[in-house]
Amino acid sequence: MSQHGRPSRRHFIATSTGLAASVAAGQAIADTLADVPARAVGADLSGHSERSKYVKIGRIPEAGPGKRNVDPSDAINSKAPLDKLVGSITPTDLHYERSHSGVPDLDPAKHRLLVHGMVRKPLVFNVDDLKAMPSVSRTVFIECTGNGWENWHRADENLTVQNTHGLVSTNEWTGVPLRFLIDLVAKDRDSTWMLAEGSDAAGVARSIPLTDEILNEAFVAYGQNGEPLRPAHGFPLRLVMPGFEGNLNIKWLRRLEFGDRPWMTRWETARYTQLQANGKAIQFQLRMETNSAITSPSGTMTIKPGYNRITGLAWSGHGKIAKVEISTDGAKSWKEAELNLPALPKAQTRFQMDWTWDGKPTKIVSRSTDDKGKVQPDRKSFIAEVGTNALFHYHAQQTWSIDETGKVRNVLD
Amino acid sequence: MSQHGRPSRRHFIATSTGLAASVAAGQAIADTLADVPARAVGADLSGHSERSKYVKIGRIPEAGPGKRNVDPSDAINSKAPLDKLVGSITPTDLHYERSHSGVPDLDPAKHRLLVHGMVRKPLVFNVDDLKAMPSVSRTVFIECTGNGWENWHRADENLTVQNTHGLVSTNEWTGVPLRFLIDLVAKDRDSTWMLAEGSDAAGVARSIPLTDEILNEAFVAYGQNGEPLRPAHGFPLRLVMPGFEGNLNIKWLRRLEFGDRPWMTRWETARYTQLQANGKAIQFQLRMETNSAITSPSGTMTIKPGYNRITGLAWSGHGKIAKVEISTDGAKSWKEAELNLPALPKAQTRFQMDWTWDGKPTKIVSRSTDDKGKVQPDRKSFIAEVGTNALFHYHAQQTWSIDETGKVRNVLD
Repeated sequence: MSQHGRPSRRHFIATSTGLAASVAAGQAIADTLADVPARAVGADLSGHSERSKYVKIGRIPEAGPGKRNVDPSDAINSKAPLDKLVGSITPTDLHYERSHSGVPDLDPAKHRLLVHGMVRKPLVFNVDDLKAMPSVSRTVFIECTGNGWENWHRADENLTVQNTHGLVSTNEWTGVPLRFLIDLVAKDRDSTWMLAEGSDAAGVARSIPLTDEILNEAFVAYGQNGEPLRPAHGFPLRLVMPGFEGNLNIKWLRRLEFGDRPWMTRWETARYTQLQANGKAIQFQLRMETNSAITSPSGTMTIKPGYNRITGLAWSGHGKIAKVEISTDGAKSWKEAELNLPALPKAQTRFQMDWTWDGKPTKIVSRSTDDKGKVQPDRKSFIAEVGTNALFHYHAQQTWSIDETGKVRNVLD
Repeated sequence: MSQHGRPSRRHFIATSTGLAASVAAGQAIADTLADVPARAVGADLSGHSERSKYVKIGRIPEAGPGKRNVDPSDAINSKAPLDKLVGSITPTDLHYERSHSGVPDLDPAKHRLLVHGMVRKPLVFNVDDLKAMPSVSRTVFIECTGNGWENWHRADENLTVQNTHGLVSTNEWTGVPLRFLIDLVAKDRDSTWMLAEGSDAAGVARSIPLTDEILNEAFVAYGQNGEPLRPAHGFPLRLVMPGFEGNLNIKWLRRLEFGDRPWMTRWETARYTQLQANGKAIQFQLRMETNSAITSPSGTMTIKPGYNRITGLAWSGHGKIAKVEISTDGAKSWKEAELNLPALPKAQTRFQMDWTWDGKPTKIVSRSTDDKGKVQPDRKSFIAEVGTNALFHYHAQQTWSIDETGKVRNVLD
């Protein structure tokens, strides 16, 4: 459905056996009106409006093998509850979270950002310096490069879409363009790489190639969905790298260094490298690929025969989502879903499609295409190309099977 | 600055006497590196990531003359802290709030929406029915029609921009298009008006003309910034009417009735009518006008001579913001500000401009223009046209005066 589009009433009415809406006439209307709560004066105002007590929504904290510590081989995740979210913005407190050594407690009055290396004028900034500069605000997804890993290496039919895809979220981020800081320190023209380093105990640090795309789009953020960053997301400063691996979006940012080659930190030699089928590893495979997942119906849900809206999220590190196709017969045939417009570049885009389930076992699948023509691969093609030694950048099509009782399960094709 | 634009480094460097950034070389760099916190393992994961303890941000609750009760002449407000927000999205818990009888505590499992009147098939929906239907998500502002009222009728130089403009906010709302519900109940073609009624104790109810624009854009929302509505914003259901008076965006929505004339509720006869200079009142003046305010520098702030970024928010109920101009000499001359793109229709748009303050007393003003060519009026022209009997739809240009000490004050021209 386009932003002002008209959804299909006929399809909905013809097939809504599960709909609880009832014809209301005469006494039925009076009963409905009598049903509302007593007209008592409600709760008073507050400085912050909290969630309803009836709303149960949260992330799933998942500890790594050794829980949080300074060993870079461990990490902890909190996955966003994609099955319970609507629209495309992720609630700030439910944005997925991953850290290697827990969330540091940083005093913004004491925090500094050092910008140095191959520059004419190294500078140290405090947080207020950055807030005083020209800013950019942009709604983009950030995704952990390990998102989807579970379905690469094992089949667990009890996984929800929060388990399989919950390491991606979309917020509006605000900060200072990297170009602006580069101009301030007068970067040497021969500097083609930048090191970004965090203040966490693990000292996460990544080398970033200074392509035109990155020079034009990266920024040092201090804001998230209108407010200061939350500690879990880098307070007081983080690097935002639209379209690139989550771990490059360095949180608790304390240092940017300019050089002419990568630093080969342990994060790019031991940790975030991609082992290929032939036993060789790829370094600096940084861009997040074209991806999508149906969030409803999805794993562990149960549906009824008749009308079911299929909806989900699509995203690509290459640009805008141009098309999402859905198959309701196990990838034999495909239909184009409606996108919620405008589709923003490098942001999650909501899609939906009317579907009448006939009650017979089947499989539903989504396949996204971005405006650079990149198509999300099926799992077999993806594995044929990449093998099964790798850990990152899994972005194959997600299949949900539905049995004759309507139970939805995660399956691998 | 465009989304990928390049801000003016030269302007910033040449005039940044207040900047705390310092040249860091040799020992200075080492000191900076030594400054960071001890590398202790940080806080563990959680289901929700909360704000930093260092961040103090909240709304201002303002009680009406009689505090909350069921008398429609009273109301209570919580204003959004525009001076402390960044970007264009308002944090969900800081979205402005206005209610006439407090926030009702509604159980979504028991809540119903009755849709009836001049229809062939009156229907009662529960919340799950609506969530199962095709949906639309849209980022739009909602604004209280009384926003800005303070500067119409009195001059208080101690007001902040939160005081003068804090009754407007922007969220991404998700729900069912009104067109879809109209098709389900088979509305009579002769029905040209709709009544929307809330479940609050005051029973706020408004008559809404069914123009093509409203039929195409209105929706019944159950989601806000990705999550279920918060109780203060209508949980479990509210009407969203992009571009129109906040009070039409009926919260705690329980009933939509279709008819062929307005119902003349007390909200449109006694409350939300607009008294003109000639003593006659206008009813159903529903659209919010072209507006803007500089949020920094703004009332009660103090600035220093040299570089100052001017930034603020602009919005229009007619469509997209096309242009924002800023005067730094009391509306004698104007310069075009940079907009953060894309500017979404009927949403707040962030603007900014470089400015060097020479330390002499002056006044700064913003003036917005939308894509329908509507220009925000200056205060004198606005009052010449509308008079001073009215209470609503104040949208004249906001002027901040700056004295020789850099203190910023709210003034009336």
